[in-house]
Amino acid sequence: MRYSKLLGKTSRQAPKEARLISYQLLYRGGFIRQSTAGEYYFLPLGWRVHRKIEAVIREEMEKAGAQEMMVPILHPLSLWQETGRAKEASFELMRVKTRSGTEYALGGTAEEMFVDLVRKLKLSYKDLPFNVYQFSSKFRDELRFRGGLLRVREFFMKDAYSFDENEAGFKKQYQQMADTYQRIFSRLGLKETMMVEADSGYIGGDYCHEFVYPSSSGEDVVFACDHCQYRANLEKARAALEPKNPKEKIKEFRIGKQPEWVCTMKDNVRHYGEPLWRYLKNVVYVDEKGRIIIASIRGDQEVNETKLKKAVGAEILRPATEKDLEKIGTRSGWVHSWGHKGAFYIGDEGLKMVKNFIGGYKEKNSDAFNVNYGRDFSYPLADIANAKEGDLCPACQRGRLKKIRGIEIGHIFQLGYHYTKKMKGAVFIDRQGKEKPFYMGCYGIGLGRLMATVVEAFHDKKGIIWPKEVAPFNVHLITLKGKEKEGEKIYRQFKKEKIDVLWDDREDVSAGEKFADADLIGVPVRLVVSRKTGNKIEWKERSREEITLLQYNEVIRKLKS
Amino acid sequence: MRYSKLLGKTSRQAPKEARLISYQLLYRGGFIRQSTAGEYYFLPLGWRVHRKIEAVIREEMEKAGAQEMMVPILHPLSLWQETGRAKEASFELMRVKTRSGTEYALGGTAEEMFVDLVRKLKLSYKDLPFNVYQFSSKFRDELRFRGGLLRVREFFMKDAYSFDENEAGFKKQYQQMADTYQRIFSRLGLKETMMVEADSGYIGGDYCHEFVYPSSSGEDVVFACDHCQYRANLEKARAALEPKNPKEKIKEFRIGKQPEWVCTMKDNVRHYGEPLWRYLKNVVYVDEKGRIIIASIRGDQEVNETKLKKAVGAEILRPATEKDLEKIGTRSGWVHSWGHKGAFYIGDEGLKMVKNFIGGYKEKNSDAFNVNYGRDFSYPLADIANAKEGDLCPACQRGRLKKIRGIEIGHIFQLGYHYTKKMKGAVFIDRQGKEKPFYMGCYGIGLGRLMATVVEAFHDKKGIIWPKEVAPFNVHLITLKGKEKEGEKIYRQFKKEKIDVLWDDREDVSAGEKFADADLIGVPVRLVVSRKTGNKIEWKERSREEITLLQYNEVIRKLKS
Repeated sequence: MRYSKLLGKTSRQAPKEARLISYQLLYRGGFIRQSTAGEYYFLPLGWRVHRKIEAVIREEMEKAGAQEMMVPILHPLSLWQETGRAKEASFELMRVKTRSGTEYALGGTAEEMFVDLVRKLKLSYKDLPFNVYQFSSKFRDELRFRGGLLRVREFFMKDAYSFDENEAGFKKQYQQMADTYQRIFSRLGLKETMMVEADSGYIGGDYCHEFVYPSSSGEDVVFACDHCQYRANLEKARAALEPKNPKEKIKEFRIGKQPEWVCTMKDNVRHYGEPLWRYLKNVVYVDEKGRIIIASIRGDQEVNETKLKKAVGAEILRPATEKDLEKIGTRSGWVHSWGHKGAFYIGDEGLKMVKNFIGGYKEKNSDAFNVNYGRDFSYPLADIANAKEGDLCPACQRGRLKKIRGIEIGHIFQLGYHYTKKMKGAVFIDRQGKEKPFYMGCYGIGLGRLMATVVEAFHDKKGIIWPKEVAPFNVHLITLKGKEKEGEKIYRQFKKEKIDVLWDDREDVSAGEKFADADLIGVPVRLVVSRKTGNKIEWKERSREEITLLQYNEVIRKLKS
Repeated sequence: MRYSKLLGKTSRQAPKEARLISYQLLYRGGFIRQSTAGEYYFLPLGWRVHRKIEAVIREEMEKAGAQEMMVPILHPLSLWQETGRAKEASFELMRVKTRSGTEYALGGTAEEMFVDLVRKLKLSYKDLPFNVYQFSSKFRDELRFRGGLLRVREFFMKDAYSFDENEAGFKKQYQQMADTYQRIFSRLGLKETMMVEADSGYIGGDYCHEFVYPSSSGEDVVFACDHCQYRANLEKARAALEPKNPKEKIKEFRIGKQPEWVCTMKDNVRHYGEPLWRYLKNVVYVDEKGRIIIASIRGDQEVNETKLKKAVGAEILRPATEKDLEKIGTRSGWVHSWGHKGAFYIGDEGLKMVKNFIGGYKEKNSDAFNVNYGRDFSYPLADIANAKEGDLCPACQRGRLKKIRGIEIGHIFQLGYHYTKKMKGAVFIDRQGKEKPFYMGCYGIGLGRLMATVVEAFHDKKGIIWPKEVAPFNVHLITLKGKEKEGEKIYRQFKKEKIDVLWDDREDVSAGEKFADADLIGVPVRLVVSRKTGNKIEWKERSREEITLLQYNEVIRKLKS
């Protein structure tokens, strides 16, 4: 490709709203441009990278025996209603209605579609197992975007769906997909990717794993044990229960004086000098049915809304307003850990780990002291709090949890019978001649986000440093003044040799500018032909400082090796 | 690929609604399945064909110097409003609204998007010319579907957009794209494809050409000159004007008696014994502004609504109802060729080609005779009628037009400044340093329709006969009872040799069934290993009857040649 004719050249400046380094560099390098919020154009350079990522994923999926196919983007809304997901995913689901009145959802994930297809095919155990996948546009009606490819409204996803006779068969596929994903990420240079326990959200199923690449630009929070292989994200991570004050004796409950100004956890610490875990804390929510829910936790804990929803069986939670609190006879800052009529109480399991709490029954000039769960108050407990850095690992019970930020670049789900039991006729004929529902899994990778992650991982001050497998070109050829003819000759030779070359053939651009552009674009090998290089060609790799002068034949040999 | 594990096997029966042979065979072969009306699943076999078609198109587009990229499917509706197309294309345009209230159109064609991108890039003449293209899902809110891939709601299209400094540059690109399209269709075996003058519809621009493959299943009607290269579709085709009765003398106008039952053209012919062209005919429409339009034509002509819309400047036309006719003081069957107050008259140019018409002023028991345009009635004439088989060619004025049915498989458009003058800032800096709008063209191929066309063109009673370039596999290997081990060995060898093989490894299926399936699926080469073939392999090509026995090495040599 001649750079002079490439649509999308480099820019000095990224747009002001571009905070992520990946967005800045992909913009400046001429890889992408924003259409509207969360919608991006892939310029030819960007699309080359995207296609190379696609090729790596396809190769690994094929190696794993998966079959590529394609389902429509317009999903009949009736299918999403059949599984109840039209409601569950409603806020993210975009809908269209045709002239003839049929309602469709714009595909965000395609479980219903694949199940619907498969049930039409009337399969038997002989057709099983199989794993089918597609690369297609997906849509999420997000409310906020970060600028760049990490969170968008529309993106390409490789989504795969496995169908098995039973759980044993599925488990093999799940492991194979986990291995396949790690191979894909390794080939893109993302070797540090962690496989992490996660929450299934509206996809459903019993368990799932995210693949998270450690990065300060990430929005995912992972807890990793420093002793064993336990890895879980914030929504899922548990902590082993540890008594906070095991040696202390249980004291007598009493209501005592407390200055009126002591209200927040900070005030408590300041006034009593005791650590955060000593105080009781109450966070109040309202669910979609109007239930007022009081989540009772320790002062050192934060409510985990994903866990809380599961524990109380709610689909949506919103923070309670003063009006809500009035209904149960209280107000903000004065919520009791027990006793509000009309409220639904739930506590975190960690409440059992502390003797003699302070708080939980605050009145104007008083509060409760030596409060003990089980003796002074009692209701169901569950794991409803976030894990914290330093918590005891729930798996090995020896290591401590470390908190790591990262980018979610893949997600695999056990689905089991979640869809095939909801969707009528999603069965195969088993070895005994009986109808049996399929046992399913699903597996997704967002390609644009993966592209941004590679840039977050591989760049320096000057620009991007593409790993070889996904670089837009393999070679960036630069010719300087007076060497246009030699450039043309080498370029044509390279084309003949099927070398994937970008040639900066611009005649009115300075050497400095060409070098800066090459560094910004980040092709792995830069070749320079100038008066200084004589008959030879200057070879420089983007990831190294070293510069060498080579004969044409040596260049070809190195490029092909 | 092992056939036993392929998702989507053959079926004996196609669905009842499958009238097109391409739909029947693609269904029965296990290539596609319907989701909802106009929406299809591509099964793994079908998707392989689709991807091969994509590869051929990409290869030829790259050879022509075009650059692949990608624009979002969600187009900001504001862009379609900027060019006025939100209104023009309204009936086909599907819309979605996000939670935050932004309105989008689901891309059906992407002129606005590409122009919007290009204007953001601030280009100069040095960046020109270029041609950018994408493969992406397109949407059309059709009202009726035919079953199968010929007319659908959602499909993959390769759409390309060229940007030039001026018309001269554009014309080269247009010719190059025309040549590229013919090469693409030839590679798919569709050598008889015709390049045909067509109407631009809501795409706009001054001229355009369709590529039409002759087929009785097609919905396109093409008129082709039997003497020169003139080819135009029904919407566009003209006829050279020919006097119908040149030797006749103009007679005196008179109102004469006519029996009440003489009303239709058929009645006229029956009563007077004169040919159809002798009678005047009036067809009445109402446009979007409520104008009542009387289209006056000869009895042997049909109104061409596309031409009529252009001639009268209407966007939408609907047939007039009795109520509409009442407004201008008449009723169905009694419309005069002149004189209705409140109606807008327009005639076809062919009216000048007949002396002494019968009709045009029918009352209960009378009609007009010896009616002559110019003398007895007069208003603007235009080309508003369909061409007909046997008409004189408008290009060479020597040949006669033949009517051919066909499938539209590609469309290229001159756009000129149609978009770049409507969209603010769609300019480049020219050689004089001044801002100048881009001169554009656009070029589209629908992939699914192309796939169906290949099947319409290449099949026999037994099934599909895929051309090599787009066959789902190159070889269909069949092993019969007792030869499973040999099959396994050959299959593994083929995989090593990178031979694209489908192996029918089913153990409980008869030879006859396997042969029938191979014929139905239509892979170009069938290989059979059975007790009868001994150490050799039976070679049969799908398109021939001949069967030969070959050594393994000979098979490899033939497959690789």
